[in-house]
Amino acid sequence: MKKSVPLAVVGGDLRLAVLAELLSADGHTVSVSALERHTFGSGVHRAGADGFGVQQAQAVILPIPAESSDGLLNAPLSNTSYHTQAILDAIPPGKLVLAGAVSQGLYLRAAQNGLHLVDYLQREELAIRNAVPTCEGALQLAMEELPITLHGAKALVIGNGRIGSLLAQKLAALHAVVTVSARSARDFARIQAAGHAYLHTGALPGHLAGFDLVVNTVPARVLGLMELSELPENCLILDLASKPGGVDLTAASQLGRHAVWALSLPGKVAPVSAAQAIRDTIYAILQEEALL
Amino acid sequence: MKKSVPLAVVGGDLRLAVLAELLSADGHTVSVSALERHTFGSGVHRAGADGFGVQQAQAVILPIPAESSDGLLNAPLSNTSYHTQAILDAIPPGKLVLAGAVSQGLYLRAAQNGLHLVDYLQREELAIRNAVPTCEGALQLAMEELPITLHGAKALVIGNGRIGSLLAQKLAALHAVVTVSARSARDFARIQAAGHAYLHTGALPGHLAGFDLVVNTVPARVLGLMELSELPENCLILDLASKPGGVDLTAASQLGRHAVWALSLPGKVAPVSAAQAIRDTIYAILQEEALL
Amino acid sequence: MKKSVPLAVVGGDLRLAVLAELLSADGHTVSVSALERHTFGSGVHRAGADGFGVQQAQAVILPIPAESSDGLLNAPLSNTSYHTQAILDAIPPGKLVLAGAVSQGLYLRAAQNGLHLVDYLQREELAIRNAVPTCEGALQLAMEELPITLHGAKALVIGNGRIGSLLAQKLAALHAVVTVSARSARDFARIQAAGHAYLHTGALPGHLAGFDLVVNTVPARVLGLMELSELPENCLILDLASKPGGVDLTAASQLGRHAVWALSLPGKVAPVSAAQAIRDTIYAILQEEALL
Amino acid sequence: MKKSVPLAVVGGDLRLAVLAELLSADGHTVSVSALERHTFGSGVHRAGADGFGVQQAQAVILPIPAESSDGLLNAPLSNTSYHTQAILDAIPPGKLVLAGAVSQGLYLRAAQNGLHLVDYLQREELAIRNAVPTCEGALQLAMEELPITLHGAKALVIGNGRIGSLLAQKLAALHAVVTVSARSARDFARIQAAGHAYLHTGALPGHLAGFDLVVNTVPARVLGLMELSELPENCLILDLASKPGGVDLTAASQLGRHAVWALSLPGKVAPVSAAQAIRDTIYAILQEEALL
Repeated sequence: MKKSVPLAVVGGDLRLAVLAELLSADGHTVSVSALERHTFGSGVHRAGADGFGVQQAQAVILPIPAESSDGLLNAPLSNTSYHTQAILDAIPPGKLVLAGAVSQGLYLRAAQNGLHLVDYLQREELAIRNAVPTCEGALQLAMEELPITLHGAKALVIGNGRIGSLLAQKLAALHAVVTVSARSARDFARIQAAGHAYLHTGALPGHLAGFDLVVNTVPARVLGLMELSELPENCLILDLASKPGGVDLTAASQLGRHAVWALSLPGKVAPVSAAQAIRDTIYAILQEEALL
Repeated sequence: MKKSVPLAVVGGDLRLAVLAELLSADGHTVSVSALERHTFGSGVHRAGADGFGVQQAQAVILPIPAESSDGLLNAPLSNTSYHTQAILDAIPPGKLVLAGAVSQGLYLRAAQNGLHLVDYLQREELAIRNAVPTCEGALQLAMEELPITLHGAKALVIGNGRIGSLLAQKLAALHAVVTVSARSARDFARIQAAGHAYLHTGALPGHLAGFDLVVNTVPARVLGLMELSELPENCLILDLASKPGGVDLTAASQLGRHAVWALSLPGKVAPVSAAQAIRDTIYAILQEEALL
Repeated sequence: MKKSVPLAVVGGDLRLAVLAELLSADGHTVSVSALERHTFGSGVHRAGADGFGVQQAQAVILPIPAESSDGLLNAPLSNTSYHTQAILDAIPPGKLVLAGAVSQGLYLRAAQNGLHLVDYLQREELAIRNAVPTCEGALQLAMEELPITLHGAKALVIGNGRIGSLLAQKLAALHAVVTVSARSARDFARIQAAGHAYLHTGALPGHLAGFDLVVNTVPARVLGLMELSELPENCLILDLASKPGGVDLTAASQLGRHAVWALSLPGKVAPVSAAQAIRDTIYAILQEEALL
Repeated sequence: MKKSVPLAVVGGDLRLAVLAELLSADGHTVSVSALERHTFGSGVHRAGADGFGVQQAQAVILPIPAESSDGLLNAPLSNTSYHTQAILDAIPPGKLVLAGAVSQGLYLRAAQNGLHLVDYLQREELAIRNAVPTCEGALQLAMEELPITLHGAKALVIGNGRIGSLLAQKLAALHAVVTVSARSARDFARIQAAGHAYLHTGALPGHLAGFDLVVNTVPARVLGLMELSELPENCLILDLASKPGGVDLTAASQLGRHAVWALSLPGKVAPVSAAQAIRDTIYAILQEEALL
């Protein structure tokens, strides 16, 4: 980085703690708060809890998601609870605030305070970068839970989007026998061009026998009682879809199917890579805002 | 196929000849015309040149492109020249006509004749299916023209679209060292997630030394005098972009750079696979039109 | 299987329990003993502890390894301890006994009893089949222990044998940047043909900075104090080598390096696949012995 | 290279011409003879035809193969014919001579002249390095001859040796559906671990219907009348085996099967890569002989 920028990191999990260290290692002046339980290297400064270090910062970085449903800052590494409102109130008007998974309410309050709030999780490049640790996390989970190797396993990936297509490629690279389901002729052609078999997501019943592993990536109920009861007893079901999820977990439980709802994998399985992805996205935003 | 449909195939190259055979093998009644120089199996009927077999057909299939710039049917396997107008005039109003790379003029004439004209080359699934033979054709050309193996070769793919991303994957699978150029942060993230290095297509100069192979997939002038003169003398340049192409061939020739403009690869390197792709696309259209 | 053969499975871990079920599912008459803590399906018969079911069996199958150093049967799923000698004494002379990792002492006692003892772990096909779960287990461990993704990680695999070459291929398939070390010009050429960089195992110092992951597959001390101190602090070190192992664990501990000695991965990470591999090997032996 | 060595290159095809240039580019003093029809850069010296430049050279490099069956030097780029005997007679006793595919007669004559003759083609590392251009040449031929894409093609590779296993990997990387045939349980396990299906080379009949491509790598008659007549009419058969070859070409011709006997692919499809492989092998020999 050619230019050094003062930045404040407030709250978040291990990803934001590592992010602060990465930003500092690049030569930026970084202050952190609401991250008391993480031990930082010498370059990172702890801000007083009164001001969160936001006065000196040219941009304030909040976590993913920025706040919980009750309006508290998402700060699992802090010893204290903070109202997000209080943090926004401490930031001088006109300043750039970067946050992930921003709610309507938070946008509104930032606008009222005259802050320029950008949701970095909305950036498609971050979603693409997060696909890599998400898919590795899915591979890891499958390896941990299955008593067979992925090599030779019959795997169904539901959905051919960002996550589904990358996961299918990684499974095939490890010699699983891969089928991907989707809903359009365009996606069927893509799945074939990638070397996999395909199914129609809307017509799975009748084709589900024999799978050792099913991974859902579609954020809509695709595996209900009928689908689950057709899957083999030993089949592992991973649901990577955000709420409300794509698997009827109650039905799975009643049927004795082993289903795992795996959310937020990047931060769990590869926090450093996840932090690097956030850093690169934040740099792109800072450049667009002419701060870098 | 559950249902047998009478179909007429008129003109085209080896792809349309093979298509007629594939349709016949699936149980459809197929008549062909303007394909005299191809020897067909027993199931395909030759239509008289007066009517082109279009009266009995439920759909008439024309080639890619349907006509040349002078209004003649694209029919390299025919002994005669036909005006496309004459063929359209022979088709009863209301009938379905399928053609590739349809010009505005042809659409107009079809509309005047009351024909339902669909351009099957506009279907994204066909473009995706054609990407496979296009990329294999590029590999074949590179293997034929380069005195080194693709294994270990330093390759630059310009453009991360349908062709570029698939070609990069195939080159890397053969252990070339692959860089892909694109123009957006989104594409840079995609290129990294696919495991390649990346460059900005708009800022290639300064990064072009050392490549053994450059393949352009962008239909805009990206390799001009400045870029070409920076490429090593032994570098092979393949241009897969449709007209006007992305390489300044005059400059390449003056500089003594080896540049090949490779168009319409699917029909040249894998006519049977190309015909299968057309067949699958035509079936999808026939189903949507409730003819199949 | 065309022919049904009576078989006795005695002792072992989950792999031998699953093996018994697989053999039974193929139509063989299977009795088990020293496996009390495993719940079997209806096809498998429990033998009385007096005779171990060996009288009726045409072949007796013992675990990997067959016995511990103190002469006791390896039987972690049994409620009782057995002397291997007692089991051998129960088997009628002339009978085929299949066991894994057979010691000299065990061979001697089998010979004294007139038994035909074959070590199925000596079969190269089993070693090759076990390489797959071993490598997947190494990937799983690396994913669990590293805070970064394998995608983009700099990995060194020490040794280009059965395990090393397969692991390098799998790491590269997940887009790690892979270097393999070996000791011969032949292996260097193989490593390059597989698309990886190479180092000389005997001259690692000076080349170890920058690795995120080192996996040793060589059963000899290759990572001592000098090598370990050169590896980055955050580097994960996996040792897959059987005793005495290839990593100086004491030095690693003193230096604060994170080293994991991972033994017997197939049975731990993929017991069902491991059991299938044993089954296929046992079938090959039974065919050679004209019992199948 | 730290040390400059005077070397003489005598005869050979494009590979030896390029080899001379590569050696010169590394700083060695290189003289060439019997290569008149190749245009060399400024660093390479042409030796007089009387002495072949062998007096000054510390090692003399002859081609692959060194001589034809009638005792003439293999020199397709020369305007003159030379007896290999005459060349050997010109070399002072005690000198190192490097040649490829050395016959018994040539060894004998070298010994009589007191020369130290080493066959560099016997070096396993060269055979391994040559496997890469051989396999790419096979891919290129298959792409040129088949009217379908390798993607989706059903391919049988006969033999799981150096060439067979690498070719199978490359075909699978391009999404062909790959079966490999071999003869041992060990190789069957290896083929499965590499993710392919397998057949027994000795029991091919009954399993040959449906293949689009068959590549033989075994130097023994494996595809006779019975096997060939079972292969589909459109199947392409490539024979990569050295003499006597593995395909009954007369039977293939009678049956109308398209069979291509492809020999010496590295020099044909990638002469520069082939020359680099020879160079690396010669350096290894020179180091062992303490000349480098």
